[in-house]
Amino acid sequence: MSTSSDPFIRDCAAVREKSPLVHCITNYVAMGINANALLAVGASPLMSFCPEEMEEIVGIASALVVNIGCLDRHEIEGMKIAAATAHRLGKPWVLDPVGAGASRIRTQTSLDLIRDSHPSVIRGNASEIMCLAGEQITSRGVDTSVLSSDAVEAAKALAISSGAVVSMSGPVDYITDGTTVLTIANGHPLMSRITAMGCTASVITGAFIAAGEDTLTAARNAMALMGIAGERAAERASGTGSMEMHFIDELSTFEPSDYARSIRI
Amino acid sequence: MSTSSDPFIRDCAAVREKSPLVHCITNYVAMGINANALLAVGASPLMSFCPEEMEEIVGIASALVVNIGCLDRHEIEGMKIAAATAHRLGKPWVLDPVGAGASRIRTQTSLDLIRDSHPSVIRGNASEIMCLAGEQITSRGVDTSVLSSDAVEAAKALAISSGAVVSMSGPVDYITDGTTVLTIANGHPLMSRITAMGCTASVITGAFIAAGEDTLTAARNAMALMGIAGERAAERASGTGSMEMHFIDELSTFEPSDYARSIRI
Amino acid sequence: MSTSSDPFIRDCAAVREKSPLVHCITNYVAMGINANALLAVGASPLMSFCPEEMEEIVGIASALVVNIGCLDRHEIEGMKIAAATAHRLGKPWVLDPVGAGASRIRTQTSLDLIRDSHPSVIRGNASEIMCLAGEQITSRGVDTSVLSSDAVEAAKALAISSGAVVSMSGPVDYITDGTTVLTIANGHPLMSRITAMGCTASVITGAFIAAGEDTLTAARNAMALMGIAGERAAERASGTGSMEMHFIDELSTFEPSDYARSIRI
Repeated sequence: MSTSSDPFIRDCAAVREKSPLVHCITNYVAMGINANALLAVGASPLMSFCPEEMEEIVGIASALVVNIGCLDRHEIEGMKIAAATAHRLGKPWVLDPVGAGASRIRTQTSLDLIRDSHPSVIRGNASEIMCLAGEQITSRGVDTSVLSSDAVEAAKALAISSGAVVSMSGPVDYITDGTTVLTIANGHPLMSRITAMGCTASVITGAFIAAGEDTLTAARNAMALMGIAGERAAERASGTGSMEMHFIDELSTFEPSDYARSIRI
Repeated sequence: MSTSSDPFIRDCAAVREKSPLVHCITNYVAMGINANALLAVGASPLMSFCPEEMEEIVGIASALVVNIGCLDRHEIEGMKIAAATAHRLGKPWVLDPVGAGASRIRTQTSLDLIRDSHPSVIRGNASEIMCLAGEQITSRGVDTSVLSSDAVEAAKALAISSGAVVSMSGPVDYITDGTTVLTIANGHPLMSRITAMGCTASVITGAFIAAGEDTLTAARNAMALMGIAGERAAERASGTGSMEMHFIDELSTFEPSDYARSIRI
Repeated sequence: MSTSSDPFIRDCAAVREKSPLVHCITNYVAMGINANALLAVGASPLMSFCPEEMEEIVGIASALVVNIGCLDRHEIEGMKIAAATAHRLGKPWVLDPVGAGASRIRTQTSLDLIRDSHPSVIRGNASEIMCLAGEQITSRGVDTSVLSSDAVEAAKALAISSGAVVSMSGPVDYITDGTTVLTIANGHPLMSRITAMGCTASVITGAFIAAGEDTLTAARNAMALMGIAGERAAERASGTGSMEMHFIDELSTFEPSDYARSIRI
């Protein structure tokens, strides 16, 4: 297997080489770790939610990530302008529908963004994906109470109805365009005990779809990178504080060919 | 002493077992460490300050924490709806009156929340507690310039007038319902050189009053956990950066029976 | 050379002794690390952007730092009140024009703040400084695409037109009042792979101009401290996650006389 023929190695190299500028409208909990994760993998973060500059900022960015974790009326306005601008300019963008199902405004904002501005990727946990696919579940905030394997059909349905790649994280991650379903079995339970890990998966996905050739493949490679970095970090962690530090260290130093051999599907 | 008869061990076990969903309206400085601290002790954090979803979010939460650290008009609206909803639904909630005394809007917002929505616990430093108790002091932002021991009478008076348990942090923490005064002498000076440690004490208090049986005891146990984790972290710290990491590691791995033996009053 | 005669040692001691209260209107990405960096060097942070309390908060602070990283209409209002109050009260203040040139609202807000409220120090990267000096460049978000050495003339021109000390960071930092140009060659490439390092330089600058005697010298000493702490942290770092931790550890434990010997100009 040559370096260039492996899609994971190729996408990681593309992120480092192109250093895509990823514009993030993300929640306040996640901003620091999201910016550091993007810098670690070789991308450039830009955080802004000011409606007045949304068109200019999206115009210079390579990809957009909209995370509805800390939404309010003012931010929703910024999110909608940003997403519409990305769609109009043909720039790839990721929707992270944090807490969809936990409140009407979260569910409705997610559905509005999907309907009006067609995200390239919808990345969430099983309860969020099932909520957006129209399944009746009860959400417990941002946690997932549904096993991913039960939700694969919902993910496929949402991919078909929205036209987006759906990337659903859990003990096994499912990434689907509605027809093909890819899986990533990497990861570690400690990852769910650090805040904003899902949000970080979304911004890494943004970097990969900006630099990669194929959205489905790039979204899958982003989840593989997250999962393996989490496994490696957990080996050295003495708790969840050092887990976060080692995770960022991994993202900033990993060897793509080494990681490629660790992918489990 | 059996495990079940020790209130500290019992409350720690209850937090881990029940994993209470703690809704935090906290300041932007504290959001990351607060979410990670809650996850570390076994609780589930949910951060939102959007007025439109406050009633739904409080409805699914086990406890609410309102921290006025980064207040503005819009957030004050969300705080008031959240606190009123918690009071109406009988859910326990913690007020952290950050910087009360430093500006009129901080003092007034704190007093409004206490009068209208009756917090279960008011957790602050001595200058904040004395301000809310009506004592004349000059505040120097979020620092405390008053020794806790001088402020115990103010804490008791505030507990009686508000009906809340008052948890006042300092070199010695005082926790009182106006009649009984409990003390915790654990802690380390390095803790005051990490931002948002007081805010973290408030969210941990939120988790403990959600899972514990008695508010006064639970508030005291939360402060004991904070103090001992700080002492243990300081033993391994090489500065304030590693202090923060070791502190979260401690919260995520501590042995309740071991910590119970380290409580100093 | 006696301790008191070295300006770096003298300024570091002054920060630790006076513990200036630094009021920061900073972006949400930077808030945590900025507060921890200020605490580490011995200063006291206070974060607030609430227009209603701006005059009171600036009144009790020793210095103000305005960082436009996450601006919106509401925050711009708070920034302008805070800067005007600092100017009126004769308190030193630092402007960090994050992303000036990336959008019209960022450029215009920076120019308004300079014209109306006369910052003591403008601290930015080369692309931001050149934008404010009126040079035509294309900005790529918050990154700098211009070598600092090419921009020294722009920095001098901006210092003269604004009356501020201009502190321009890059592989070599240039600090100028328009006549004298000081340089600091310390630093490490890993620093640019951690988010909010520029913002951190700005708040450290705020602490130093609050405690030091001379603005130009204090601004230069702040950059020296940043650069040397970064070099020392990089020696021990295993990636960008541990780099950030070691950097804060350095700021909280450094020996001024040791660092003074490491300054490269």
